[in-house]
Amino acid sequence: MSEQPVSKRGRPGYDQRAILEIAVDAFNEFGYDATSMGVLASRLALSKSAIYHHFASKEELLELALDEALDALEGVLLEPESQTGRAIDRLAHVLRGAVKVLAANLPFVTLLLRVRGNTVVERAAVERRRAFDRAVSALVVEARDEGSLRSDIDPRIVTRLLFGMVNSIVEWYRPEGAEDPTHLADDVLAVALDGLRMLPAT
Amino acid sequence: MSEQPVSKRGRPGYDQRAILEIAVDAFNEFGYDATSMGVLASRLALSKSAIYHHFASKEELLELALDEALDALEGVLLEPESQTGRAIDRLAHVLRGAVKVLAANLPFVTLLLRVRGNTVVERAAVERRRAFDRAVSALVVEARDEGSLRSDIDPRIVTRLLFGMVNSIVEWYRPEGAEDPTHLADDVLAVALDGLRMLPAT
Repeated sequence: MSEQPVSKRGRPGYDQRAILEIAVDAFNEFGYDATSMGVLASRLALSKSAIYHHFASKEELLELALDEALDALEGVLLEPESQTGRAIDRLAHVLRGAVKVLAANLPFVTLLLRVRGNTVVERAAVERRRAFDRAVSALVVEARDEGSLRSDIDPRIVTRLLFGMVNSIVEWYRPEGAEDPTHLADDVLAVALDGLRMLPAT
Repeated sequence: MSEQPVSKRGRPGYDQRAILEIAVDAFNEFGYDATSMGVLASRLALSKSAIYHHFASKEELLELALDEALDALEGVLLEPESQTGRAIDRLAHVLRGAVKVLAANLPFVTLLLRVRGNTVVERAAVERRRAFDRAVSALVVEARDEGSLRSDIDPRIVTRLLFGMVNSIVEWYRPEGAEDPTHLADDVLAVALDGLRMLPAT
């Protein structure tokens, strides 16, 4: 989680960060369109003007939340282990990192995955998410070309199935549960890269 | 697709089946709660009473659509290949069958996957879907116990990751696209059971 400057304006008890987190929970629960600033204000027991003290608009809340999720995902691509070495190892590192980002930023990534591109802010987020997917897809191609991934599946299909598996984690993963993120990332890699079958297929 | 009796009542041009399919598309596009019978009527260019000629309520439309998706999925479990033989082969057959059902009934399964259990009809559908998931989870346990699946991953996590991958297909699969359902099912099995890596992990 990135550190956010804590504003001391507004009613005591809620800083900017807390308002953002409660807004993201409300967006995930009711949908962004259905969550008005009035709904948010009543959830926070604040006046609307107290929220506007911190944020110019509902869309600014959305933009900050989506940026945080995207910054975290893109950060994985910038890590040294994603940049050097064999493509298969870089791909494994990126998948592992994506699972950890998802587990550590669950509400923010959930919001990102539900965005459909209805507004300028949403379209920009969808475009950044697609660029991330393309970077992973390029790694799949590279890993296939270096001979470390099987070549009989279309890399676009592989990428979609991998993200389908990773992204579905937001539907059931609970940070307070028994499965820690590192273990979960191991499981995803075990299924996706090594497969579940004990013996090599004949 | 199951055959539905075609009612000849109502305005010419729409039988019961056509109204159901258009309703499902509308539910998927706008959400079930947001789609009123008035919205449906204007999409169909019918009066509301013409729809009520065929269906008692909006909920009946939902129930028929969810039943159709669930009947198709549960039908896979009843096929002989899901009932006899090694657990790994039965699991492979069920996964392959689930992908084909999804591809053949895309709008109906999409609706099923989005249901959250807000009404009696929705809760019944969620319960049937969970029972299907439990049947697959039991197959994963059986396949592990017979020694054909790796035993280092919790079968519940395996089942969730498998369904995460399979269910995500509704997000991008288009029946008119280049990827036919049989090929898509092969790809899912290749990723999930055999893994993407060329060489066995050390």
